Parts: sequence; structure tokens; C-alpha cells
Amino acid sequence: MAPSIVQDHYPESFAHCYGCGRQNDLGLHLRSAWEGDEVVARFAPRPEHVSLPGFVYGGLLASLIDCHAMATAAAHVERVAGREVGDAEAPRYVTAALHVDFLRPTPLGDDLVLRARVVETGRRKVVVRMTVTAGGEETARGEVVAVPMPESMGRAS
Amino acid sequence: MAPSIVQDHYPESFAHCYGCGRQNDLGLHLRSAWEGDEVVARFAPRPEHVSLPGFVYGGLLASLIDCHAMATAAAHVERVAGREVGDAEAPRYVTAALHVDFLRPTPLGDDLVLRARVVETGRRKVVVRMTVTAGGEETARGEVVAVPMPESMGRAS
Repeated sequence: MAPSIVQDHYPESFAHCYGCGRQNDLGLHLRSAWEGDEVVARFAPRPEHVSLPGFVYGGLLASLIDCHAMATAAAHVERVAGREVGDAEAPRYVTAALHVDFLRPTPLGDDLVLRARVVETGRRKVVVRMTVTAGGEETARGEVVAVPMPESMGRAS
Repeated sequence: MAPSIVQDHYPESFAHCYGCGRQNDLGLHLRSAWEGDEVVARFAPRPEHVSLPGFVYGGLLASLIDCHAMATAAAHVERVAGREVGDAEAPRYVTAALHVDFLRPTPLGDDLVLRARVVETGRRKVVVRMTVTAGGEETARGEVVAVPMPESMGRAS
């Protein structure tokens, strides 16, 4: 059985994200799932997602890293709590800080593969580190600080 | 006379960026120009650019910060060389590193305003720092390291 997709289990009211929300008709629909000890997502950039002709736009990479990190944080806290993705609604994290190092130009054409792990947890924050590869070559690295969605964003009290 | 838009002067062959390229029909068309000592861009998010309902998607903010930083780097090196934007083709920078701090949720509805300055220059790199405000409130800060476009990306030799 294929592992459950984290974003399939975001609460109905909070599944509108342009990057990964199943309820955003115009969005990117990134899908993240456990593969062993990593949370992995694959994404095929659209032809318009270019920076310069033939290369993937850095803003897309930053966007995917952001969404994939939130899913990784959610999957991690579920696993630590002894739950599998899909056992309950996935906890909804938001980004406090996003850092991306662009190691080399990312060619357009191959699927992008994002592989992420949690490297630190605090009282609230979860720090996620990941790589982005295209055609097997690592082109970018991301580090993202996730925090639980604040109540000011609509979280049910 | 309104100040010249940096992105209007990117070389014809390198104006395809999804975030700011005038030749990308499906892109965001960010436009950056000097206002005094800052390079400023304004952007109206589309309804689909949400993270959670009512709030702007962080990946969009990261994307705009990225493109605006490249334009700021280009405008800065032009000014240092004694040229105004539009006197020549704008130099094309690419992103080596991108950092965004999300200070608070960014409400959807108001135009976003990005105000940027160069804070450091090296032999090749240009470091840009900026704020993002929505409805007059600062919601995010960015710091971006720009480097000249490498020849591997198609720069004319």
C-alpha cells in the first residue's frame, strides 16, 4: 500500500494552500509522504516555471521547499506521537523562517525530488532540512522553521 | 517621469522569469524601480495565492523577494557604475541564497510593498535586504545573496 499523503489529511478548512492544498484548483498540489526515515515529494515543473530559459525558477523551488517542510513537520510530530499519517487530521504548521541555498542551476525537464528530515524540535518549533535534486543531481538545499498555525489564522480554539 | 522598471531592461533572451519576466505570459510580472535610495515593487496577490483562507501564501512572498532582490542588485550595480536604469541592458543576477523571516501572517487583500536595499557587496556577490508590508504593516523580511548569471545558464560570452 502506498504511504498516505500528508496533504490529503490537512483539515478541510485549511487545505487551500497554493503550493499544496487539495482545495486550491489553480495551485501546485505538492504531495508529501514518508519513504523510510525521510519525507519525500516529487514535482514536475510546468513549462512556465522558468527563471531563465531551460532552468527552473528559484521561487518555485522555495515554494515547494516551504510546503514540503510543513508536511514534514506534520508527519514527524504524528510519528513521534505514535500515529501514522492518516490516522487523524494532520497538524497544520506554518513557516516562521525559510532558507534556501541554490547550489547550481536546476534544469527544467526532470521531476524535482525533495527529501526532508526533521533536524531539531523545540517547545513549538520544528526545524526541517531538505535537499532538492533534478535528474539525480542536488541543485538546492533548504532549511525551514515550522511552528503550529497560530489561532489568528483561524485555528479552531 | 516615472522611474524606469528594471525588468523592462533585462536582455530579451533572459526575460522569461515566472516571477518577473516580461516574456512569461503566465507569470507574475513583478516590476521593480528606484524610489529614492530604495528599490520598490508593489504586487497584488491573486485570489489563489493563499496559504490558509485570507492569508498570502509564503511561497509567493519568497518568490517576490527573490525576483525583487535580483532587480535591486541590478539597479544597484548600475547606479554605482553611474548609469540610470534603462541606460543599458540591466545586468542579470541569479540567486545564490534566499532567507525569509515570516514575522506575522500576511493578510490577503492589500497590495504587497517590497522595499529593498543593498547591504553588502563582494567581488561578485551583492547582498540585498528588504521588507514586505501589507496594509502598512510589516509582515516579512528577506535577505538574498545575488551573483551574476553564470555562463552555464546561457550568458553571452
